[in-house]
This record gives sequence, structure tokens and C-alpha cells, in this order.
Amino acid sequence: MNIFYAPPQQIGNQIIELRNQEAVHASKVLRYRAGDEITVVDGEGAWYEGIIKHITERSVQIAIHNHIVQKHVQPDITLGMGIIKKRDRLEFAVEKAVELGVKEVALFRSEHTVKQNVRLDRLYATAVSAMKQSLQAWLPEVKIFKALDPAIQYYTPENIIVARQSADRVLEDALKHNALLLVGPEGGFSDDEINYLEARDDVTFISLGKHRLRAETAVMTALSQYHFV
Amino acid sequence: MNIFYAPPQQIGNQIIELRNQEAVHASKVLRYRAGDEITVVDGEGAWYEGIIKHITERSVQIAIHNHIVQKHVQPDITLGMGIIKKRDRLEFAVEKAVELGVKEVALFRSEHTVKQNVRLDRLYATAVSAMKQSLQAWLPEVKIFKALDPAIQYYTPENIIVARQSADRVLEDALKHNALLLVGPEGGFSDDEINYLEARDDVTFISLGKHRLRAETAVMTALSQYHFV
Repeated sequence: MNIFYAPPQQIGNQIIELRNQEAVHASKVLRYRAGDEITVVDGEGAWYEGIIKHITERSVQIAIHNHIVQKHVQPDITLGMGIIKKRDRLEFAVEKAVELGVKEVALFRSEHTVKQNVRLDRLYATAVSAMKQSLQAWLPEVKIFKALDPAIQYYTPENIIVARQSADRVLEDALKHNALLLVGPEGGFSDDEINYLEARDDVTFISLGKHRLRAETAVMTALSQYHFV
Repeated sequence: MNIFYAPPQQIGNQIIELRNQEAVHASKVLRYRAGDEITVVDGEGAWYEGIIKHITERSVQIAIHNHIVQKHVQPDITLGMGIIKKRDRLEFAVEKAVELGVKEVALFRSEHTVKQNVRLDRLYATAVSAMKQSLQAWLPEVKIFKALDPAIQYYTPENIIVARQSADRVLEDALKHNALLLVGPEGGFSDDEINYLEARDDVTFISLGKHRLRAETAVMTALSQYHFV
């Protein structure tokens, strides 16, 4: 099954327009034709079914004949991840976070972050692709923050869960509520960052098992727990 | 912390020899010198500490002054994965499986496998790197099988756990025993493979949550559960 993505501003009461890569993908790669049925999500929980009225590699016009809105799966988890050096591993972490159903992704410059430039356009494309691949209608927004604290300030989360190798095991209770889940970059959080987190009363530290995990592995291991609560 | 790998045949009663990439890595990349302390694992559970006696980029001679043997973390899980098409995703799956502590890795040609050639040398290097990165002393062997059935015959597992989207939720009990954990390739198991598995009385099907997961994501999601039992 293939689904396509159009942001809400390309969706009217009766017509959806696919543009850019989505139009190329529908017309050239998957060779859809006028008259074909097609499924589109808006990245905010809505699914549309429609019939293609006009299709080129620049624009696909779709007449809507059905639509449903899905709530985001609960709890709402925002992933906060220290920016890691290797681009492929960073993109992988974002891809897996989206596949595993996070609500938002916050990449922050941890004190141990060494990477200079982050290609937000590539991460956006990664997120769109992962949403479609995993048949979801929610597109998490990927934002970049200058440090840990501004990311926490921005989301003002009800709960903060921090992955830390030396912590006790996770309490299932900690996984039942909306939360900002924090994972450090390679090398982990700095001492200052740990002190800052330990001083907060909304932070729960969880362990991710016995082995030293790479940052992107820690992301997946932590998020995978939510599938089993 | 850095650790190095030498297979048992390079380890004597008093001397270890690092060769090839390990010798290059120690001498050129990390610039170890004679007299430095160094830690070596043998891939079969043993940790050695020693002093470098002689070092070139071809060979590092280490005098052992301490060694301990670690049991493999229980339960023993063998990952059986249908071979997927994209090399980077296949290598990622193997890397993550090793990080998460599997005992062995079996890659099999599922009926839905389309990939022709698998570079076993690259997967070996991936496994060595992941073992060292995650500070483990066990190197899972990666084997390739022509089909699902020969892989099951080879390991004769006590239990078989199969990831399947439509299954009920996992029973924690299923995660407490040694097992062969099976994940299909992209496109999943074929009908014949599912029929074959359903007919066995040693198979438990587990669900990996609500979303359609890529094969390498399914591997990580399933293995992550073992860190929390």
C-alpha cells in the first residue's frame, strides 16, 4: 500500500493537490493515471481517499470522496536528542523515531555535540518518508535548539524522561504519560547537563539495559518500550 | 574506553597478538605505544588486560596480566532475519542486533528476499565494530542460509518467536527463554512461510505494536524488549 503526503494548505474541501516530490513519485515512479484511486495524509491526523482528476509531474489534482481523522496514538512523546556527528546515524534516529510514532522531534546542541551544520531539509524529507512508510497520518515536526534548556522550555513537558546507563530500570508507570524523552549525543550528557536535569522534579531517569548503546540505538530502545506498555 | 578484538587462536597463555585492522587501529588511529595498557576481548566472553610489548601496524604483541570470563547475558537470543534489499539497512540491523546482545545472527533467503549478493565480510566487520562499541566480549557469528527452514534446522532452537503485525501483544513469558527470534524481510513472510511456522508447536507469534515497521526497525523493537524483562 502506498500513501501520499499533502500539507493542510494543499487540501481544500473537495480537492487535494500533490506537489514537488509527491507529484513526481505518483506520476513517474508509481505511474498513477487519471481515474486511479489514491490515498493522501495531511500530517495532522487526516486520511483522504480520492480519485485523480489530473496528473503531471508537477501537480496531481485529486477529488476527495472520503476522509477520516485519526487521533495521535497515546501517550504523546516528544523525542529530544543531542545532535550526533554522523549524518546517516542522525537521519536514522529521526526515521526510527517517526516510525515508532513520536509526536515531535527536538534536536538540541548538547555540550558534547560537535557537529556544526544540520540539514533540516533532509531531516524533513526523512520524516515524511518514514511517516508514509509506516502508514501514519501524523508528521512530527523536527526542530533544532541551541541547547538542552531551550528545548525543554519550548515544549514545557508534563514529564521528562532521561535515558541514562547508570539509572535503575524503567518503571512502567513512567511510560504511561505524555513526556519529553531525552537522549544524549555520543559521549552522553555533560556533567552540567546532568546536574541541571537532576535538579528538576519533573525528571525521571531510566536505564536502557546493560550495554553501552549508541545514541541512535538508545532512541530506538527507549521508544520501543512504548509499544508494549 | 576502547577495547580491541583478537580471536582465540591469537591468544596464548601469556601473549595476545592483534593483527590486521585491529593492529592498524591501535597503532595508527589511537597511537598506542609500547608500555601502554590495553584491553582485548576474544569474542567468546573473555576480557584480557595487558601491556603492549611491541607494536607496528601489522602486529601488536601484548603481555597478559589479567583476564576474566563473562557469561553471555541470558536468555540467549539468535536473530533470524529475512535478507533485505538495501545494504545499509541490512548492516544496520546486524549492528543493532549485536549492540543489543544477540548470541548469533542468521540471515536467510526468505521467499520475499530479492537481494542477490550479501557481503559477509562487511557484516563480520560490522559485528566486530558493534561488539567493541558496546563494550561486549561476545562476537555473534553471522551466517547465511538459503531459506527459512535450514536456518531453523541449524539452530534447533528451544523456542521460536516470530514478529508479526497482526499478532496479539507479546507475553512477557515468551521473552524469558532462549529463543530464535524471526523477522521477515520487506514485504514480510510469504504465505507458505507463515503456514510452515503456524504448523509448528514451538512457535509464538508476537506483535510489535500498531505501525507497519521496516524490517530493521522490527529487529530493534523486538530485541529492545529483552532489556526490560
